[in-house]
Amino acid sequence: MQSFNSSLLENAVEQLSKLPGIGRKTALRLALHLLRRDEEEAVALGEAVIALRKNICYCSRCHNISETEVCPICSDPRRDSHVVCVVENVKDVITIESTHQHSGLYHVLGGLISPLDGISPADLEIESLVKRVTDDNLKEVILALSPTIEGDTTNFYIYRKLADLPVEVTMLARGISIGNELEYTDELTLGKSIQNRVLFSSTFPKR
Amino acid sequence: MQSFNSSLLENAVEQLSKLPGIGRKTALRLALHLLRRDEEEAVALGEAVIALRKNICYCSRCHNISETEVCPICSDPRRDSHVVCVVENVKDVITIESTHQHSGLYHVLGGLISPLDGISPADLEIESLVKRVTDDNLKEVILALSPTIEGDTTNFYIYRKLADLPVEVTMLARGISIGNELEYTDELTLGKSIQNRVLFSSTFPKR
Ligand SMILES: [Zn+2]
Ligand SMILES: [Zn+2]
Repeated sequence: MQSFNSSLLENAVEQLSKLPGIGRKTALRLALHLLRRDEEEAVALGEAVIALRKNICYCSRCHNISETEVCPICSDPRRDSHVVCVVENVKDVITIESTHQHSGLYHVLGGLISPLDGISPADLEIESLVKRVTDDNLKEVILALSPTIEGDTTNFYIYRKLADLPVEVTMLARGISIGNELEYTDELTLGKSIQNRVLFSSTFPKR
Repeated sequence: MQSFNSSLLENAVEQLSKLPGIGRKTALRLALHLLRRDEEEAVALGEAVIALRKNICYCSRCHNISETEVCPICSDPRRDSHVVCVVENVKDVITIESTHQHSGLYHVLGGLISPLDGISPADLEIESLVKRVTDDNLKEVILALSPTIEGDTTNFYIYRKLADLPVEVTMLARGISIGNELEYTDELTLGKSIQNRVLFSSTFPKR
């Protein structure tokens, strides 16, 4: 452990190295970079980080990040409000938006069902999805969760919850590699998997 | 360019991606990480970055970063105040300290002479070094600059400035690879090069 002879530098390095993928060595490099730049640049960075966490809201309809009660996607009249794409998190909204293949709205669950991590359906925005299907008269719910055990568990749980409602439940075509996180899928593959989405019930083993 | 539908997120990503080695994709990952963590964590990071840049001072003797007028190294009575190691920047102080081979003080130049980058001797803490040699009755000045053209130019400039003063001017042994930045040298090699430092004049070609 290197000593910096400065608690200001020590503290900045400690805070920066809490970020994922940033070790102490990289954190020191970043801190010394900030010392060399104009004061305004460090202040802008610090304030942007604080404002992001303090002022961010979540859309009351889709639970995506937003700065207004209803997010720009939900309030866009050109989008198909009867088709809702269910995703794990905010990052997945950005990823799917970048494919330009989904013209409907979103529903951000806030995670996946994972008994090992102590995440149960009640921790996720699943009840609000069920309510939305009825309230907003949804025609299609597209399940766009990661093709992992947790994603599959969550897909099936939601499918059962919606089984008695007059809505089509589709899921992303499994062109995407099994076992990988959604965010590492390239945009072309992901776009194709939206185009080729299939009825969730068609994936059940034949009896 | 991905759109985030949030100016708070957009701004945080923009500021984070100004850091060296952090692209937009990594910046987005860091911003979303901060959104998932407690608010205190983002505030602590933001405030640490601002405090670092706003409150840092520089030691009036050695020009290393400090929170007091004279830094802890300069005011440590166990260190040899008659031996001063001349380095390019703050990072190099930390790097040399980590070798535990230098028990004297430092003098941080704030850069290297580089006509191409418009950095002249007047932009660096060279006059203050010359003054220090006399005022503090220095016995040895160790030149610990990067073994690059700029480092060699600066070494020679300082050597000429100190030529008429009763001080020994030494430099790091060139065990370190020519052309590389000092900060990428491993600690063992760097420590050895301090132990084996030689008289600067002994490196001149024989005539
Ligand atoms: Zn929304
Ligand atoms: Zn000092």
